[in-house]
Amino acid sequence: MDMQKIQNIIKTFSRERDWDRHHNPKNLAMALSVETAELVEIFQWLTPEQCDNLTSEKHEHLKEEVADVAVYLLRICMAYDIDLEEAIIEKMKKNEKKYPLYDTNGEKIIYQKK
Amino acid sequence: MDMQKIQNIIKTFSRERDWDRHHNPKNLAMALSVETAELVEIFQWLTPEQCDNLTSEKHEHLKEEVADVAVYLLRICMAYDIDLEEAIIEKMKKNEKKYPLYDTNGEKIIYQKK
Amino acid sequence: MDMQKIQNIIKTFSRERDWDRHHNPKNLAMALSVETAELVEIFQWLTPEQCDNLTSEKHEHLKEEVADVAVYLLRICMAYDIDLEEAIIEKMKKNEKKYPLYDTNGEKIIYQKK
Amino acid sequence: MDMQKIQNIIKTFSRERDWDRHHNPKNLAMALSVETAELVEIFQWLTPEQCDNLTSEKHEHLKEEVADVAVYLLRICMAYDIDLEEAIIEKMKKNEKKYPLYDTNGEKIIYQKK
Repeated sequence: MDMQKIQNIIKTFSRERDWDRHHNPKNLAMALSVETAELVEIFQWLTPEQCDNLTSEKHEHLKEEVADVAVYLLRICMAYDIDLEEAIIEKMKKNEKKYPLYDTNGEKIIYQKK
Repeated sequence: MDMQKIQNIIKTFSRERDWDRHHNPKNLAMALSVETAELVEIFQWLTPEQCDNLTSEKHEHLKEEVADVAVYLLRICMAYDIDLEEAIIEKMKKNEKKYPLYDTNGEKIIYQKK
Repeated sequence: MDMQKIQNIIKTFSRERDWDRHHNPKNLAMALSVETAELVEIFQWLTPEQCDNLTSEKHEHLKEEVADVAVYLLRICMAYDIDLEEAIIEKMKKNEKKYPLYDTNGEKIIYQKK
Repeated sequence: MDMQKIQNIIKTFSRERDWDRHHNPKNLAMALSVETAELVEIFQWLTPEQCDNLTSEKHEHLKEEVADVAVYLLRICMAYDIDLEEAIIEKMKKNEKKYPLYDTNGEKIIYQKK
């Protein structure tokens, strides 16, 4: 993903409409949660089977909501100078330490979501 | 962002712990909303001034939560074969049509969030 | 539910700790979404069977999260002078009009969540 | 609040439309988070001043969203046989222990949201 290009699109869009003044961190966090819920809404009443066979209309809708979530997430990253790729890589390393594959006896750990 | 690399890290982590069976779309959507709320939680009681001067501890915490949101968002993209970069670019183009800069008389439109 | 009693408990708790200054509407809305996500978190990785047979520990946890959501919802009601019982009854009447039981031919409508 | 009356309205509405089959715990939790976000959406771009002087249209909208959140919260309570009043009272007692007014020296504790 060409992050520079994407960030420029997002910045320009907002600046041209004079919307930066609305984009303080609390508002961005609220907007992120609203967009996330619009993604959740797509799935809320679907059966597992319907989720596995999304209509093309719902798939298109999902693509839009995924984008909306990403845009607000990137705005937050831009506001706080966070490199998203670096953040993900560091967090996954933490997760690997938190959930190691082998215990201290060298035995493979069986994981279950609790 | 090297999307192939990031997706491989995410896929491998999950497969090695046998967690794919938990990662159906409804569960992923729920997890996305939970991680989003953990990001919101950082800001919920802060004043605007505190948001603008995040402590380094909170900044580090934010970086982790941003990553968690991104990871679940990418999992959803992977489950539905969505190219995130393409999705963002298409959505921003839609937004530009929805909120044009000039009206039909060629006058610059003044936007306010309602 | 003795609403007067509940509201007094909530008001007194907050006033005694000088927390009212944090409880502006945006913060309350954020807190409501955070508490809602803590409730979602209980269910996120559970199978339908596990949901139907909640452990007593998880049931106790659910009871707490339900209470937390309710408390922030009531704070919002108190901030805007909303009578929750009245609000629910009015909304359910609207829902009944939106989703009538019979169509204009007097035929029973078959509803499916879309 | 006449909880018996409210619960009957909610139950009857759902049963008459054959919607109970959609109302499993995971779906209800998702729906609760979606309704909560619709409430958050009202406030997301408002300034504190606008929040304090909500237009009557927005106030009416808020009343509806408050009701929607409450209805899904009550459905969850009904599914798990939770007495909401009791849950709130017990949780507030826990909060009072967690955030006591006086420390062990009898000194009044000064609380700040962190």
